[in-house]
Amino acid sequence: MSKPTPISGFPEWLPAQRMIEQNVIERIRATFELYGFAPLETRAVEPLDQLLRKGETSKEVYVLRRLQEDPGAQRDDSLGLHFDLTVPFARFVLENSGRLQFPFRRYQIQKVWRGERPQEGRYREFVQADIDVVDRDNLPFHYDTEMPLVIGDAFASLPIPPVTIQVNNRKVCEGFYRGLGLEDPDQVLRTIDKLDKIGPEKVAALLVETAGASDAQAAACLRLAAISTDDTSFVDAVRALGVDNPLLDEGLAELAGVVEAASEHAPGLVRAELKIARGLDYYTGTVYETQLRGYERFGSICSGGRYENLATSGNERFPGVGISIGVTRLLGLLFGRNALGASRSVPTCVVVALPAEELRPVCDRIAQALRRRGVSTEVAPSAAKFGKQIRFAERRGIPYVWFPGTDGEADTIKDIRSGEQVEADAATWQPPAEDLRPRISRS
Amino acid sequence: MSKPTPISGFPEWLPAQRMIEQNVIERIRATFELYGFAPLETRAVEPLDQLLRKGETSKEVYVLRRLQEDPGAQRDDSLGLHFDLTVPFARFVLENSGRLQFPFRRYQIQKVWRGERPQEGRYREFVQADIDVVDRDNLPFHYDTEMPLVIGDAFASLPIPPVTIQVNNRKVCEGFYRGLGLEDPDQVLRTIDKLDKIGPEKVAALLVETAGASDAQAAACLRLAAISTDDTSFVDAVRALGVDNPLLDEGLAELAGVVEAASEHAPGLVRAELKIARGLDYYTGTVYETQLRGYERFGSICSGGRYENLATSGNERFPGVGISIGVTRLLGLLFGRNALGASRSVPTCVVVALPAEELRPVCDRIAQALRRRGVSTEVAPSAAKFGKQIRFAERRGIPYVWFPGTDGEADTIKDIRSGEQVEADAATWQPPAEDLRPRISRS
Repeated sequence: MSKPTPISGFPEWLPAQRMIEQNVIERIRATFELYGFAPLETRAVEPLDQLLRKGETSKEVYVLRRLQEDPGAQRDDSLGLHFDLTVPFARFVLENSGRLQFPFRRYQIQKVWRGERPQEGRYREFVQADIDVVDRDNLPFHYDTEMPLVIGDAFASLPIPPVTIQVNNRKVCEGFYRGLGLEDPDQVLRTIDKLDKIGPEKVAALLVETAGASDAQAAACLRLAAISTDDTSFVDAVRALGVDNPLLDEGLAELAGVVEAASEHAPGLVRAELKIARGLDYYTGTVYETQLRGYERFGSICSGGRYENLATSGNERFPGVGISIGVTRLLGLLFGRNALGASRSVPTCVVVALPAEELRPVCDRIAQALRRRGVSTEVAPSAAKFGKQIRFAERRGIPYVWFPGTDGEADTIKDIRSGEQVEADAATWQPPAEDLRPRISRS
Repeated sequence: MSKPTPISGFPEWLPAQRMIEQNVIERIRATFELYGFAPLETRAVEPLDQLLRKGETSKEVYVLRRLQEDPGAQRDDSLGLHFDLTVPFARFVLENSGRLQFPFRRYQIQKVWRGERPQEGRYREFVQADIDVVDRDNLPFHYDTEMPLVIGDAFASLPIPPVTIQVNNRKVCEGFYRGLGLEDPDQVLRTIDKLDKIGPEKVAALLVETAGASDAQAAACLRLAAISTDDTSFVDAVRALGVDNPLLDEGLAELAGVVEAASEHAPGLVRAELKIARGLDYYTGTVYETQLRGYERFGSICSGGRYENLATSGNERFPGVGISIGVTRLLGLLFGRNALGASRSVPTCVVVALPAEELRPVCDRIAQALRRRGVSTEVAPSAAKFGKQIRFAERRGIPYVWFPGTDGEADTIKDIRSGEQVEADAATWQPPAEDLRPRISRS
């Protein structure tokens, strides 16, 4: 086999990075579970017709084909890999609605696949961590206020820079546009969504050209989009624009509720950011985007919103609200800047040195005694000179080497960072808590 | 959307089962890490030519195709989903050999895909949990003796029936067949591998027909295959057959080493089972299969072995030894017989009852105080009658309901299993340790 090379868009981490990824996923998961979200994992494949209901993503879908189909057997090429966790979740809820308890809170941390053109922060295979709450027929609004709290706690548990969750509400935008007299609010929103890319002047021109706006209406839309506050003062700022509409009122009350709950829970976590549009998705109320401070130009690392219609079947309807952390995207950014490190590249805390090959059973027993008390331990691969055995530990960042006592002497353990060596008994020795597992930290 | 139906071969668990699966994976992972195996996750796809190097599996490979290829862009259909974790691991080792420390111990717990005909215990998408140790050029034999210890500890940590690890050594078989004067040991092994399916008489006939054996040679091969001991007495039993060969000697010494180490570590865990052949794979020495006691007829749930040639590139050669737990296979068997249960279907330990919607902020603060100390908590979805709020907890198996004190009264907490209700303070209350998380147990 010639030396293989990476495949663009399919990232792979070295073991030390994979330890960090696992640690990050565990902390996110622990937070999700503290809020009572139950775990779910769906299969990687969905029927192609389900995947293509969102037309714009069809170019990104990977379709499966068996290399050698059995003649006459049902063909598999009606299956594709899921490109997000929302489509599979909606399908799962419909398929199992009789066996689930509603409101149903679930989290789902899995790989998804998109055949996009790879670039920094964009992958063809990546991990997402989603939470959603769904109910039958109606889902109370207070779940919209809970999402930023869960996500804020999840990010606060990670050794990463602080985040800002930007929140908006589709009802504010649509109500405002309608109150202005604009009749195609979707087209206005699509145009406003281009603000960061093309700037306010071009957006104003486009609003006039494609959304039937007058210059004054376009200017008002831009003034709305410019509102950004870390408290509920955005309500007065919107009111000052002099637009009146019942949907706008509803949206402002909801958005104020989200901002208020968050500012009690974690001051500075949430901003009302009235330009956030979240593309053309199925959101119908609250929308969320999340910026990593210092990495704003890389875009959102965690997005979501409220959808009144996650799934329907016959007369069953399931509204929901959810949010999704781009785990691979986040780690790719931080790994690319060496901003996250692990104190060692293996779980191992202790290497038991091997004085001679025939003493391997003795060393194995020492290792087993340590493992029984939760201390990750390896026995040296061979009875090389002790200097080489110590380098074996050093190269991996393993902090301790255990030396079995020979000729009736006591065993000793050496902290190879400080060089300190003390007598120790495998039946009782315990490392300091901070050495037990690899430490993950900002670097 | 009409009600979706499951896709055959792609199992999905309900949340309570997914909690069990996660718990099982965590315990396996914890054991792997105690032995110093570092985590690895490889991408789901490999170049098709790599996947097809094992010719017999080509029918099972799922090939990827982008639904809409960009004209002129590189086509993606040279990629397929991996069907095991060994092929990707071998590729990863070659690709990153300059960045890894050898001997390299890694574990890998991931989904794999095979387009097989689905049947009980056979899936098209399933999770495997692998450990392997690889080294450059030479890998000491003692790693072969370690595999059953790790796997024994991993299974012992799970709420499942005890397992038996059956061990054999290819060198024993090949040496014995050569010592008998048979010249096609691979063909003999392939035939012996059919023992359980077609029985000894047909195997004897096939050995004569297809492997050039005399009746006496065929009978000797069957006598070898019939040897099964839980200690090293198999060595004498083989010797008593009167065959002499240096490779046989080497194999017997290795196999005795594995059995001996295991019987010290966990008596009864390992059996020398001289009929184990592990198909036509790349194994060159020790081979392992694992039976769940009481479920023997479902076949092996954990298999592996030694391969002298995991990967080669130029003049680099990487021998290894590894073993793989079929996690989905194991869980599918046990779920199918209701042999594994969880004490509740959600992580939630406490539901905070909501006396009135305007008290939601108060209830949220109680929930937050409990979460801060690691107690998974939800606030009731609505201010329904308390009876309904208690049923909300009951239906999910949540053990506690918290009642906020109103009018200056103290808060109380009710164990809804016993009905016992006591005063409690959210700043200090802690559930009994066994209630903190869902308990997973044999049922």
